[in-house]
Amino acid sequence: MKQVERIGVSLEKGLLSAFDKLIVKQGYQSRSEAIRDLLRRELSNEQLSDPKSEAVATVSLLYDHHSTKLMERLTGLQHSHLLEAISSVHVHLGKHDCLEVIVLRGRAGQINKVAENMVSLKGVKFGRINLIATEGGELLKK
Amino acid sequence: MKQVERIGVSLEKGLLSAFDKLIVKQGYQSRSEAIRDLLRRELSNEQLSDPKSEAVATVSLLYDHHSTKLMERLTGLQHSHLLEAISSVHVHLGKHDCLEVIVLRGRAGQINKVAENMVSLKGVKFGRINLIATEGGELLKK
Amino acid sequence: MKQVERIGVSLEKGLLSAFDKLIVKQGYQSRSEAIRDLLRRELSNEQLSDPKSEAVATVSLLYDHHSTKLMERLTGLQHSHLLEAISSVHVHLGKHDCLEVIVLRGRAGQINKVAENMVSLKGVKFGRINLIATEGGELLKK
Amino acid sequence: MKQVERIGVSLEKGLLSAFDKLIVKQGYQSRSEAIRDLLRRELSNEQLSDPKSEAVATVSLLYDHHSTKLMERLTGLQHSHLLEAISSVHVHLGKHDCLEVIVLRGRAGQINKVAENMVSLKGVKFGRINLIATEGGELLKK
Repeated sequence: MKQVERIGVSLEKGLLSAFDKLIVKQGYQSRSEAIRDLLRRELSNEQLSDPKSEAVATVSLLYDHHSTKLMERLTGLQHSHLLEAISSVHVHLGKHDCLEVIVLRGRAGQINKVAENMVSLKGVKFGRINLIATEGGELLKK
Repeated sequence: MKQVERIGVSLEKGLLSAFDKLIVKQGYQSRSEAIRDLLRRELSNEQLSDPKSEAVATVSLLYDHHSTKLMERLTGLQHSHLLEAISSVHVHLGKHDCLEVIVLRGRAGQINKVAENMVSLKGVKFGRINLIATEGGELLKK
Repeated sequence: MKQVERIGVSLEKGLLSAFDKLIVKQGYQSRSEAIRDLLRRELSNEQLSDPKSEAVATVSLLYDHHSTKLMERLTGLQHSHLLEAISSVHVHLGKHDCLEVIVLRGRAGQINKVAENMVSLKGVKFGRINLIATEGGELLKK
Repeated sequence: MKQVERIGVSLEKGLLSAFDKLIVKQGYQSRSEAIRDLLRRELSNEQLSDPKSEAVATVSLLYDHHSTKLMERLTGLQHSHLLEAISSVHVHLGKHDCLEVIVLRGRAGQINKVAENMVSLKGVKFGRINLIATEGGELLKK
């Protein structure tokens, strides 16, 4: 069971009421939850600046599934990085277009490079890479 | 079959050779491919500034699967947005932590709101939202 | 004198100690100060999504001051937007290169457009636009 | 006089016409100019990932000039980094609020740290940091 602490934060009345309005709009149930999320995001960004930190990456690729050899190459890339590529989901968007989302896991620097290689494949119309720090310690510890 | 045009671009020798080095590193096979990707990214960002534009979203959520009721609530959210939530993939990261990637489709403004609601669920430690414009015309036309 | 409130935030021990380490590194004197900054940044981003919100923009332009007519055009743009362009600073970086930082003020959508026009001037090698919400109420109220 | 090269880029008709519309809206005079800017931005982002690369930073700070000792501390920080802090501009936004824009120059990692220290000063309501690579070679060479 993880230990919870309670801290006090002082802030201007106007800032507090503006923040309260925003988080209701975003769907948060409590202020603590919203503030914890801001803290985690800040920490994750900091961790990812170290290429050796552990991370997962979500690579979203939009492509025409008629693109010659793209799917072959994409599968090839995943197989040559078996340790990193752990899962993928494929969605049909229309007659031609698909969205493929690939989940990678490993060192931030390394999986970012694999992800860049995927985005740069001929036939990929649009690619986005999302890195999330999973570094044991602080963020994920119970 | 889509029509291809060829345009000329003039640029400084130093800029060109620096760019050539970069795209080799990123894994591109040709300059045209790399430049097309830059153009598409610029256009996609522009389109997404209109909340009514058509888009897909990839929502990546990191959470502890022991979180009481989180999975229930997440499934509930997906079912109450059946038209938008089209697919998801679930990855086990460790004893406690999972990564869930959910693909949404619809109007940029609307799916962004659904995505924010997912990120703000109690128990989600870390969430990232990626929007990609799919707006018929320019980007995806054959 | 502005009114200050004190709220309680509960969070995991590990998250708190990681955040404490980060803010020391960033130079913060207190947790409250660091958390207030995160809240303000989140609110500012939200406000700026409304093109009619009041804002200031900092436009940073890197250019070769030998570029024919660039400085003329830049001055022209500032004069034709007298209400928005309120100040600028010019820094010599080397034999050829300068950095010009221009401060604009007005509606977010409008000053962003003026800023884009500056960045797109022939001869500007590199331009960056920073928008900061100044919208009366919440953020700036005493 | 810098050497200019001309390269050919092949791209889909739809992508080209969408890009042409966008750059007219952004105020560009020519396609080459717009494409050069995209290339430079990509290269600059790449360079800045090396903390030892040469760069300039624009630090925009929004604060209440009544904040006790803030201006003193800010001036102090600039003086203790005389080599990096090269210029600043101060703008009055209202009865209380000011915008101060400070230009720093040096190694990307080092000036980013100084900038973070400025943003974290007590009394600074909002701060934004912009790094631009100036690394001799590729980007700035004549």
